[in-house]
Amino acid sequence: MSRRYLNLTPLPDALAAMRRAFPPLNHTETVPLRLSVGRVTAEPLYAEYSIPQADIATFDGYAVRSEDTLGAQDQQPLPLTRSARINTGEILPPSFDAVVMVEDTWDEGGEIWIRKSAAPWQHVRHAGEDIRAGELILPKGHQIRPFDTGALATYGITRLGVRSVRVGIIPTGSDLVPPGVVPAPGQTVETNTLMAEAYLTRMGATCHRYEIVPDDPDLIREALLGAVAENDLIILSAGSSAGSRDYSSDVVGALGEIIFHGIAVRPGKPVLLARIDGKPVLGMPGYPVAAQTILREVVGELLHWWGLSPIQGEQLDVRLSRKLTSDIGFDEFIPVSVGRVDGTCWATPHPRGGGIQMAVVRANGYLHVPAGQEGIGAGEEVRVRLTVPPERIAHTLICTGTRYPALNELGNCLSDTGYLLHCCNASTMGAVLALRAKACHAASVCIPETESAWDDQVLRYLPGVDLLRVQVARAELGIASREAPDAGAVESLRFVNRPKGSAARVFLDAWLEEQGVDPARIAGYDHEVRTSGAVAAAIENGFADAGVCPADTARKAGLRFIPLGYETCDLLVREELAGDDGVADLIRAAQSPEFQERS
Amino acid sequence: MSRRYLNLTPLPDALAAMRRAFPPLNHTETVPLRLSVGRVTAEPLYAEYSIPQADIATFDGYAVRSEDTLGAQDQQPLPLTRSARINTGEILPPSFDAVVMVEDTWDEGGEIWIRKSAAPWQHVRHAGEDIRAGELILPKGHQIRPFDTGALATYGITRLGVRSVRVGIIPTGSDLVPPGVVPAPGQTVETNTLMAEAYLTRMGATCHRYEIVPDDPDLIREALLGAVAENDLIILSAGSSAGSRDYSSDVVGALGEIIFHGIAVRPGKPVLLARIDGKPVLGMPGYPVAAQTILREVVGELLHWWGLSPIQGEQLDVRLSRKLTSDIGFDEFIPVSVGRVDGTCWATPHPRGGGIQMAVVRANGYLHVPAGQEGIGAGEEVRVRLTVPPERIAHTLICTGTRYPALNELGNCLSDTGYLLHCCNASTMGAVLALRAKACHAASVCIPETESAWDDQVLRYLPGVDLLRVQVARAELGIASREAPDAGAVESLRFVNRPKGSAARVFLDAWLEEQGVDPARIAGYDHEVRTSGAVAAAIENGFADAGVCPADTARKAGLRFIPLGYETCDLLVREELAGDDGVADLIRAAQSPEFQERS
Repeated sequence: MSRRYLNLTPLPDALAAMRRAFPPLNHTETVPLRLSVGRVTAEPLYAEYSIPQADIATFDGYAVRSEDTLGAQDQQPLPLTRSARINTGEILPPSFDAVVMVEDTWDEGGEIWIRKSAAPWQHVRHAGEDIRAGELILPKGHQIRPFDTGALATYGITRLGVRSVRVGIIPTGSDLVPPGVVPAPGQTVETNTLMAEAYLTRMGATCHRYEIVPDDPDLIREALLGAVAENDLIILSAGSSAGSRDYSSDVVGALGEIIFHGIAVRPGKPVLLARIDGKPVLGMPGYPVAAQTILREVVGELLHWWGLSPIQGEQLDVRLSRKLTSDIGFDEFIPVSVGRVDGTCWATPHPRGGGIQMAVVRANGYLHVPAGQEGIGAGEEVRVRLTVPPERIAHTLICTGTRYPALNELGNCLSDTGYLLHCCNASTMGAVLALRAKACHAASVCIPETESAWDDQVLRYLPGVDLLRVQVARAELGIASREAPDAGAVESLRFVNRPKGSAARVFLDAWLEEQGVDPARIAGYDHEVRTSGAVAAAIENGFADAGVCPADTARKAGLRFIPLGYETCDLLVREELAGDDGVADLIRAAQSPEFQERS
Repeated sequence: MSRRYLNLTPLPDALAAMRRAFPPLNHTETVPLRLSVGRVTAEPLYAEYSIPQADIATFDGYAVRSEDTLGAQDQQPLPLTRSARINTGEILPPSFDAVVMVEDTWDEGGEIWIRKSAAPWQHVRHAGEDIRAGELILPKGHQIRPFDTGALATYGITRLGVRSVRVGIIPTGSDLVPPGVVPAPGQTVETNTLMAEAYLTRMGATCHRYEIVPDDPDLIREALLGAVAENDLIILSAGSSAGSRDYSSDVVGALGEIIFHGIAVRPGKPVLLARIDGKPVLGMPGYPVAAQTILREVVGELLHWWGLSPIQGEQLDVRLSRKLTSDIGFDEFIPVSVGRVDGTCWATPHPRGGGIQMAVVRANGYLHVPAGQEGIGAGEEVRVRLTVPPERIAHTLICTGTRYPALNELGNCLSDTGYLLHCCNASTMGAVLALRAKACHAASVCIPETESAWDDQVLRYLPGVDLLRVQVARAELGIASREAPDAGAVESLRFVNRPKGSAARVFLDAWLEEQGVDPARIAGYDHEVRTSGAVAAAIENGFADAGVCPADTARKAGLRFIPLGYETCDLLVREELAGDDGVADLIRAAQSPEFQERS
């Protein structure tokens, strides 16, 4: 029933095995020119006729015989005895061998006069100067650009052979519902095949998405065989991890030969590649970020190997804003936000994990840590690949710290200025250190409104730094519980806690001290959850009796609430950078009445 | 009837006037998610529900109560008394607060055993950890990437509001025929609107191409008014130059206000911008390369100003392989081919001119010479913008010199290796100097097979350079004429000549010397044409009696032919670079029997 990935194949080995198993297909389809942008030519394209087809005028004016114009001078103008009005692009009549520009003539007494002789072939483009009939326009293997379409049409091409790969994409999983259906608890919206289609279509593949197949080996087999018959490459979406419901690998293994199952890539490890009827069948992991990684690094590589054009963002050498660890033996891909602060480009990592799809949405690039590398130190130079046009980086503002919901609204208010706000999650300490290193434009810190917190958590780490501080949000925190705790019975309560450094924990510690209770004697004091929602949920579900969360959260969960104090979320900016274009816009947006009202 | 561009507006002024005249529209349309890639969000997008919707397992295994597992150790395994089989992504049942990975358990006597206690919330993702209901997914102004579609669907979005610009494109000109029709002499295939549609659609505009309108002011007016009613931006293709048939500017001027007519841009000068009913109407030049420049630099800028996303290739700092002149006062855009030779990136310019569409097809980038710059010296650093993915540059081979047709075939043979051959036109001298500067991978030189030509034209400029030389073509040259020239009557013949340094001219000079005739006494000796086809055409059309061209060309034109000798086209490579990947492939391809047979 259950399997482990005992034999994870290193990524380069997996790609080499894939290339060996699946040589280029050289399939071709013919498409109309209008639909050819982004496709790759399967054969060389030759001009159907010469352009220009005949000698033509390159200016508006008069076709002349150059010998008739001999002797024309400023002091000795000549009338054009034989000439013909001609426009740019028109064919030079056979009896003429030059063009006089209309600007160099004048009309007098019904005759056209010139004061300068014309050299033979002056202002004439010869037949075939752009291209000759039968001459090559584009070699095979060229990806059609928008402007190429015009040239091809000019030279007589209206349909062309392009490289073709038909990709069949089958979603599998009894828990899946199609996009647009609100998932019941335990259901997942089937979105990975949508992404696969969007991504692979951009590479020039022709994708067909099949209906969702439930977790039933017979149905999976049937769908798979159908797709193998109809496509060059088949993707089974999900069903390749080692869970009890994952029948895909059994089905695939029974029908063909497995090339690899499990590669040393994070995220994306459970990927499966097999050969059925000579065709590649790829089991794509179910976690969306894992699926993305496999689409890009494995499927994309196969299509590139087969002659399609890869979609690759620009590479940029930047400094890493904070330390990253990475397991030796795994090629790891980490979403990052890149921004230029005071002339230096910095990449700030987002949380990793196959399920944290928002990390990729929030990022504007990713970092590949090769298998041989254990980690990267803060400030080290790394090469990232962008997922946005490089021009965007100059208009990206990095805000490191607590991703308070109000910051999203702030980003929205800012977007009219053309600047995009990237909020990268970090502890208060992490945010303050990023500010100190000038690795972010702004830091967002959530600190309790206590006498010492500001000094303790912020100022002591930023000696000599002039700061601008704008409050972006404020919330009341307190102890939430199902029943009002009996006075003096604190020690009998099971708590759920938040991480060190959080305002909730500072307030809890202060309250316990006030109650004269030693935290070491509190059940659940060490049980940290990562969101305030999880505090409320743990109480609701009976795993804890009490915990600190915002008043709002407690109220929504129907819990009692003992107020302890306020936390504020502040945006901090170094004063020396406050005049920079985007940073000034950010401060203005944060101070604007529209934003202050919304937040 | 005829006008000059007396008041050319500088490009930056024209763009500023355009922005002032046409503030952003903020039009929106709703599109299904599948069709949203590349579009720009018109409004912020918020999650419809939380993901995960509830606490879920992050591994396959067993849901447990962490308190039940207390005390489990290697020496003291414990059975799981209360547990539930759970798969990755499945909801944690309400009575459990942790997950034990299946790999950390074993089945013995019908019970599941563990040897390690589980921490509370171990291997659990809290509800809303990816995103909370109502949280911002994307701000407005974000260009949708392929992988964003998956996230949006996951968070409940299936349709979204995107920025919308409707562009109506009207081709005008009585000489135009639609693509697919073979143009009669004097007709032009209407391809500029096809390019405009391909380019602007990629920017996220919704384009509508109208039927071709002949050169008739009434018909143009009617078509224009219809398009103004239906679109946000109207492009009149062609009809903005100063030829006698160009009625567009009169029509446009009568219906609205002209913002500018003629800007100091090459190519692209005759562009016209007007406002009719508050909407921009752009008169696009008819020359294809001029149209491209205006689409990119003017229309693209307007759509960007209106909030669509520009299509911009990567910028690259490279060295210019040969001197370029540029008129002060004109912003000039010059197609270039960029390649990396021995570690240095070089840009080699292609011929300029609005009509030389193949120059852009052959190029992989372009160079913008601002109006204030008079020219750029050979070897100077310049910034180019690529029209291909930057990865392509490492697989681009630059061959500078004669663009002999056989080289196209060679490029084709090479394309299977993944390398693209870019042939950049240059004289033999230009090719040799580029080879000397290591500014190209290979030089292609066409030289006459005479005793001294090789030394005179090549070797003397490359002292100490070890060369590899592969013949790619050979042709017989001779004097073509309608009638066999009478012996001794050479001086009575009118000649048509080829440029200095060409093999044809070398042979003509040698022949004239042999005949004892002074070139100065030969009529037409100074009349140079740029192609051998033009030599034959000049004779056919009666402008000359004789000229030197290949036997083939003379035969096709039905002319008599007196053979003078052979020219060979050789590929020259510096021996030190011959081992480089792409160069070695090029040499192999040039020496291959397939190519040698074809050429």
